Amino acid sequence: MDAVALALDTGSLPLRRRREGAGSVTLVGGGPGDPGLLTVRARQLLAGADVVVRDRLAPQVELPPDVEVVDVGKIPGGPSYDQRAIEALLIERARAGQRVVRLKGGDVHVFGRGIEEVAACVEAGVPVEVVPGVSSAFSVPAYAGIPVTARGVTQSVSVVSAHLPPGHPGSTVDWDALAKLKGTLVLLMGVERLTAVCAALVAGGRPGSTPVAVIRNGTLPTQTVAYGTLDTAGDLDVRAPSVVVIGEVVEARIP
Amino acid sequence: MDAVALALDTGSLPLRRRREGAGSVTLVGGGPGDPGLLTVRARQLLAGADVVVRDRLAPQVELPPDVEVVDVGKIPGGPSYDQRAIEALLIERARAGQRVVRLKGGDVHVFGRGIEEVAACVEAGVPVEVVPGVSSAFSVPAYAGIPVTARGVTQSVSVVSAHLPPGHPGSTVDWDALAKLKGTLVLLMGVERLTAVCAALVAGGRPGSTPVAVIRNGTLPTQTVAYGTLDTAGDLDVRAPSVVVIGEVVEARIP
Repeated sequence: MDAVALALDTGSLPLRRRREGAGSVTLVGGGPGDPGLLTVRARQLLAGADVVVRDRLAPQVELPPDVEVVDVGKIPGGPSYDQRAIEALLIERARAGQRVVRLKGGDVHVFGRGIEEVAACVEAGVPVEVVPGVSSAFSVPAYAGIPVTARGVTQSVSVVSAHLPPGHPGSTVDWDALAKLKGTLVLLMGVERLTAVCAALVAGGRPGSTPVAVIRNGTLPTQTVAYGTLDTAGDLDVRAPSVVVIGEVVEARIP
Repeated sequence: MDAVALALDTGSLPLRRRREGAGSVTLVGGGPGDPGLLTVRARQLLAGADVVVRDRLAPQVELPPDVEVVDVGKIPGGPSYDQRAIEALLIERARAGQRVVRLKGGDVHVFGRGIEEVAACVEAGVPVEVVPGVSSAFSVPAYAGIPVTARGVTQSVSVVSAHLPPGHPGSTVDWDALAKLKGTLVLLMGVERLTAVCAALVAGGRPGSTPVAVIRNGTLPTQTVAYGTLDTAGDLDVRAPSVVVIGEVVEARIP
């Protein structure tokens, strides 16, 4: 391998560190935002990284000054890397001998497109590892005092993306079945479609009085929580990043 | 308050450390087993604890030698603390001025009875806090290479307890609705009822060819994985502690 040729391959992003050994990619779940919820292994990997490729919603973590940070987050309406460009970047840096940490918000495989990045690395022959993180789906409700399961209240919790709204031809979520399941429902993506989601659940038979909590900036000092029901949640001001909890567990909360 | 009287109140468990300030209880999710998946905050709390009250499935973590450990895990067929006794112990120790860490396996509120312990502390006037952990529901599949969600495969993941089997009058899980949901299903409790669960899902319309993975001792060096389908999983040797993943994501795995 020709180091000069590899350096030229990296395009506009300069390599800040180059190593003798083989590079690698580690996909790390960074947790919901509170830096105390990083895992021990995540912190070790971040401290030893050559480059951290982070999402917009990945937690703000302290890094040694010589660690390069590439922000590939998708800012609504702004410039962003598409998924294939992110994968190409990870592979390019690892092939250049760098220790690459791909830092995601929450967990790696809960709507994180993590497996696509793993597959791309494997196909490229780049060593890749996954380090799970604290999922926002369970931890953000916990910071609002809400248990996602509670004995005598529910024996299931479903984590769902409304990335495609109910009724959209591409949606594979059976909202009718979710309504009938009567378990806790955590909406992680597409929270701005909450009105349509609530209507679909009521149409499926879930009572309009079912409690709803909308938690914004969960686990951060700026965290706010708003409460409603399936009937009234459409009136709430719901903006990403928010986590929505639907179900009787909202009433089991202890703030 | 009389320190001597309090010491007598603690029954057969001696107090190893006593502090001037008020005691407290922190419920800590210890993650799935790999000590690297402890959170930074969990490790800090464990290092500063006077007493760690741990479940049988909580991870084995290194502690300073002066930290007392009380194992309240329920060993099948063996002696154990019941839930009310655990709560009484937490309160008693906190009232004696101790910093109590209640260490659970996985996350605090995913079938952990965490909210009951929070409620007991609040009722007793004892300061209590919850520190979420890495849930076994998502991290154990990840260590087996299985993503619980994958774009184009599923937009939901449901975490379910089969503590009460399908058809049991006390069960509130609608297995028919779960079958129709067609999302990923993670069985955390009651894995020894897998045959009945698979039959209920097939009866609800989920294809018998739906892949199933049974992960035992997940994230530990002794981890094993067995594969089957809803039709064949009944033949697998499934013993607790195991995590069962049902759904097409099992085929999306990259080991």
